[in-house]
Amino acid sequence: MQMSGVRAVVYGVGAMNSIIAGMLIDKGVEIVGAIARSPQKVGQDLGDVIGFGRQLGVTVSDDAAAVFAQTRPDVAVIAVNSYLTDAVEQLRICAEHGVNAVTLSEEMLYPWETSPELAAELDALAKSTGATLTGTGFQDTFWVNIVALLMGTAHRIDTVCGKASWNVDDFGPELATAQQVGRAVAEFEEWVRGAQRPPTFGRNVLDALVADTGLTVSSISTTTRPDIAFAAMRSEALGIDLAPGDVVGFTDIDRIETAEGPAFVFEMSGRVYGTGEGDINEWTIEGEPNLFLSNGTVPTQTTTCTQLVNRIPDVIAAPPGIVTVDKLPRLRYRTRF
Amino acid sequence: MQMSGVRAVVYGVGAMNSIIAGMLIDKGVEIVGAIARSPQKVGQDLGDVIGFGRQLGVTVSDDAAAVFAQTRPDVAVIAVNSYLTDAVEQLRICAEHGVNAVTLSEEMLYPWETSPELAAELDALAKSTGATLTGTGFQDTFWVNIVALLMGTAHRIDTVCGKASWNVDDFGPELATAQQVGRAVAEFEEWVRGAQRPPTFGRNVLDALVADTGLTVSSISTTTRPDIAFAAMRSEALGIDLAPGDVVGFTDIDRIETAEGPAFVFEMSGRVYGTGEGDINEWTIEGEPNLFLSNGTVPTQTTTCTQLVNRIPDVIAAPPGIVTVDKLPRLRYRTRF
Repeated sequence: MQMSGVRAVVYGVGAMNSIIAGMLIDKGVEIVGAIARSPQKVGQDLGDVIGFGRQLGVTVSDDAAAVFAQTRPDVAVIAVNSYLTDAVEQLRICAEHGVNAVTLSEEMLYPWETSPELAAELDALAKSTGATLTGTGFQDTFWVNIVALLMGTAHRIDTVCGKASWNVDDFGPELATAQQVGRAVAEFEEWVRGAQRPPTFGRNVLDALVADTGLTVSSISTTTRPDIAFAAMRSEALGIDLAPGDVVGFTDIDRIETAEGPAFVFEMSGRVYGTGEGDINEWTIEGEPNLFLSNGTVPTQTTTCTQLVNRIPDVIAAPPGIVTVDKLPRLRYRTRF
Repeated sequence: MQMSGVRAVVYGVGAMNSIIAGMLIDKGVEIVGAIARSPQKVGQDLGDVIGFGRQLGVTVSDDAAAVFAQTRPDVAVIAVNSYLTDAVEQLRICAEHGVNAVTLSEEMLYPWETSPELAAELDALAKSTGATLTGTGFQDTFWVNIVALLMGTAHRIDTVCGKASWNVDDFGPELATAQQVGRAVAEFEEWVRGAQRPPTFGRNVLDALVADTGLTVSSISTTTRPDIAFAAMRSEALGIDLAPGDVVGFTDIDRIETAEGPAFVFEMSGRVYGTGEGDINEWTIEGEPNLFLSNGTVPTQTTTCTQLVNRIPDVIAAPPGIVTVDKLPRLRYRTRF
């Protein structure tokens, strides 16, 4: 197979990077290293670990520094465990070694407002070594760039309101547990009151959208409501049955008001789906004119992986430091890199 | 009102630039000149001609060269007569005077394939004087950049298929006549056989999408079918009643096949609408994964104007020559320029 000349290390060898590794190979990317923690994976051939169907000649290592020093890759593809695990440790190691990195870490989509000190530290470190760090994934196009593009067709914006959903069962048991699947409503409400939750996924999305407009934030709020089973359901991720009235996930409603007037709202529901439900992505802009966007039933998991992969040439070409996806060129389809 | 520092000349003072002029003023753009041919408009104040509600202190002139020499604008906003009038003469004058220009000319969206010699001439002229020439309008986001962005979320594309419609009655009598409104089907079919039509709007759209992927065109075709009235209707643009069976417009189906496999199809219907019909913009990508986009009922005319206006900062910042919208930065919402 013709190689693209791009040499990548997969950092994390779980569900997402198993899909991503196959996509990288399809695009002609040479996988030169693989990093994981699990003793069941370390020392094995990457192809065997991800069920690729053949060996890839890449031995999974738990020593990131050694992998980077030996392989000097063009990019590291960070997908560690689940959406909930931030990738700070991994990003720091990449930055230290001057290795460009793309990550599915949610907060890295736009970390400047929610973790300014950490973002500044990683940004400075990456700039000092010439590495670019970018958080991408599903949000890149569907929650940031396609929305910002639609906003660009408006003369005047009053409100931007997004509604999205994802199926908790697509992302494994850790995330299902964190999403409160199987709890009673009273338990959920107690959890909400007491939870020291990190910023919502939606907060970073709205931060990116507001930043793209140059508007001035005047207030920020997040409210959370439980999503409830109306019929008997099953969570495949947890392997449990759910009764009517059980919590099947929740919806975060993020809202940012701006001094200039436009308001930004994002309702994101992560829940176990009933029969026939699918992921949605719908955005309405009220203003002059009113505008609308829907992606029908959107393939969230696959496009999480495709966008991370398709961002690689942009990230390699970008200047050093943290470069958020709103600042990258419009994502392009390429048959090969 | 605070001025943005952008100084613009409106080139053409018809329906579209009457809307656009108001938007420019809202964004803080200073309108420093206006050019039109009609003796009813020349010599009048622009505000009076466009029905702005007050005078603007800008006298409409028919001498483009003099206007440009006297005002040295940052950009000329070309919207002449209708979609069907190409703006070659106007673009040439802008290029000769080193004036950046944005135009609603359909072919200028992506002229390299359908008018390569003319595009090369204008490009060279603009480069010699430092002017940027860009064709924008409705197609910019809705038929090119939002589609290309969605394509960027795919791992593998088999087909890209768009369906769009616009209401002939929104764009005046010239376009309605050209769109064959009121003809009998037999007349339409005779016209189609004999018509020396310019390239379809859709052809330039597909050219831009294919170019964005770097794929190799292997075949190009356009077929045209009449759209027929199923009930009594009225064309407001022509001021005529239409009987069942009359032609109310037509649908062009453009198709480009590529050597690498992906096919691109665009069905664009320009017709007089029946009750309850609205403009649609729907794109389906088949591949891995399947992807979908709809903009619901899309405000074509308004977003034609908004996008031309919102492109102005990008065009001013772009390098000289013809710069097509697929090469410009992602369109952004700005409260002021």
